[in-house]
Amino acid sequence: MDLSNDFQSWAAGIQQRTELALDKALPEANIAPNKLHEAMRYATLSGGKRVRALLAHAAGEFCRAEAHKIDQAAIAVEMIHAYSLVHDDMPCMDDDDLRRGKPSCHKQFDDATALLVGDALQSLAFQVLSAPHLHADAEHQINIIHLLAVASGSRGMAGGQAIDLASVGESLSQTELEFMHIHKTGALIRAAALLGAYSATALDEKRISAIDHYAQAIGLAFQVVDDILDKEADTATLGKTAGKDADSNKPTYVTILGLARAKVLAQELFDNAIEPLKSYGAEATRLVQLAQFITQRGF
Amino acid sequence: MDLSNDFQSWAAGIQQRTELALDKALPEANIAPNKLHEAMRYATLSGGKRVRALLAHAAGEFCRAEAHKIDQAAIAVEMIHAYSLVHDDMPCMDDDDLRRGKPSCHKQFDDATALLVGDALQSLAFQVLSAPHLHADAEHQINIIHLLAVASGSRGMAGGQAIDLASVGESLSQTELEFMHIHKTGALIRAAALLGAYSATALDEKRISAIDHYAQAIGLAFQVVDDILDKEADTATLGKTAGKDADSNKPTYVTILGLARAKVLAQELFDNAIEPLKSYGAEATRLVQLAQFITQRGF
Repeated sequence: MDLSNDFQSWAAGIQQRTELALDKALPEANIAPNKLHEAMRYATLSGGKRVRALLAHAAGEFCRAEAHKIDQAAIAVEMIHAYSLVHDDMPCMDDDDLRRGKPSCHKQFDDATALLVGDALQSLAFQVLSAPHLHADAEHQINIIHLLAVASGSRGMAGGQAIDLASVGESLSQTELEFMHIHKTGALIRAAALLGAYSATALDEKRISAIDHYAQAIGLAFQVVDDILDKEADTATLGKTAGKDADSNKPTYVTILGLARAKVLAQELFDNAIEPLKSYGAEATRLVQLAQFITQRGF
Repeated sequence: MDLSNDFQSWAAGIQQRTELALDKALPEANIAPNKLHEAMRYATLSGGKRVRALLAHAAGEFCRAEAHKIDQAAIAVEMIHAYSLVHDDMPCMDDDDLRRGKPSCHKQFDDATALLVGDALQSLAFQVLSAPHLHADAEHQINIIHLLAVASGSRGMAGGQAIDLASVGESLSQTELEFMHIHKTGALIRAAALLGAYSATALDEKRISAIDHYAQAIGLAFQVVDDILDKEADTATLGKTAGKDADSNKPTYVTILGLARAKVLAQELFDNAIEPLKSYGAEATRLVQLAQFITQRGF
């Protein structure tokens, strides 16, 4: 990876402040019901690269939002993401024992607790976003809540999971695969960037439109790269069971396009994502770096 | 049951408009992902007595809210309730095959779909409450969203489920049982009434305080009556597997207090609930009738 120290230290800073904000928003494990709170913290803290928080902050900075307001958008999206992983790993879904190199939530605790962890994390995301006076303009705050609710629901992330389930063993076209990912991972990635952008007090429609375009392309690129990594990486470096999607007969960009064309697609999506940002010059540097970070993970 | 025709026809009207509003808010089953939407509708429509919607409307009318605004509060709460039943019936939780005399959602569809149905119904509840311009006062609307998020989460309903799970096989005191139910069912019942009350444009703090007191007592009474019915009713009339809580070694008001004292407690909670409403005379009639309806179901 060829990313500047400047980006690396920015990203580390965002990861750290996201961790702190999540730690503060999650109930302590010594508050009843203790086991549920312990499991919610287990599933949410120390979690990965925080790509969604990075997107919220990069988009928010580009739209001149205050960092402490972006934090709340970022942790709400991270909570939705964490809940989706907990439920996705459960035996009735992907039945995955490992997540980020650790036992997945239902293995560390039990299935019933994992189910409630996901449920309660979703509630907590909306609790965070509906904190009184989080935004000076309450209508603006309502729009943010609405955006996350739509992105999480049956026409967004949860719907994408349903399409994913229905696609096991099916032979999908690239268009059908794209439709699935636009919902399953794309909707929340787009929401992360838009929630960051909407955290600004004064909204610049042209910038928000550029962010929307960027986030949609990056959301797909993210999934293409995930499929490439799933094919290439071994269990040790990925921290989850590698090759699992191919094993379980799920269509991926690699199974449909082959490895070489999938890599070309990732590059095309990167180029497409940053296109509307070019007129902003140095102001868009962070977003461009983040797009590189997302599309160049591991290769 | 000795309730006036007036109440019965009021309740039937609310049940009907709630059904219509839910039908309108739920995505059609012919919209992708079709199976998920079909299952969301299966789990939510044609559903029971709609006690939470009745509470929202009775409290909303008492606080002079407009019916079409109360509808949105009522269906959001009913969606949260429906999702909790779907998840609660799953094999890793109560493992119940029947719900309201029909196969429970995971039996009618499958476990993975039931998991996603619950997840997507929760998102949809917050989508409904965050509709743009639902309330003239946006800050007021945010308070409503926040109230439901807290009531649904780890310090409310989901937390109550966790306490319930931890109590299987345990010998609880009446106080511990009460603590569990205040969270598991009480939080959402209280939210239903408060969301109805807060649907008013002008808030009367004294009335809202009376509603809060009423809803908390009725929430507990509801559970005491549930435990009595679970003991007394047979599977046919209840539409779920009767005696299941006792069979699974879960503490209930009947196992702790015995049937006779549980009935006395239900009456005491009824008296307590309506106490602060007495000064309002005929204006509180609907709330008193509803309290009778809840505490006199089946005996």
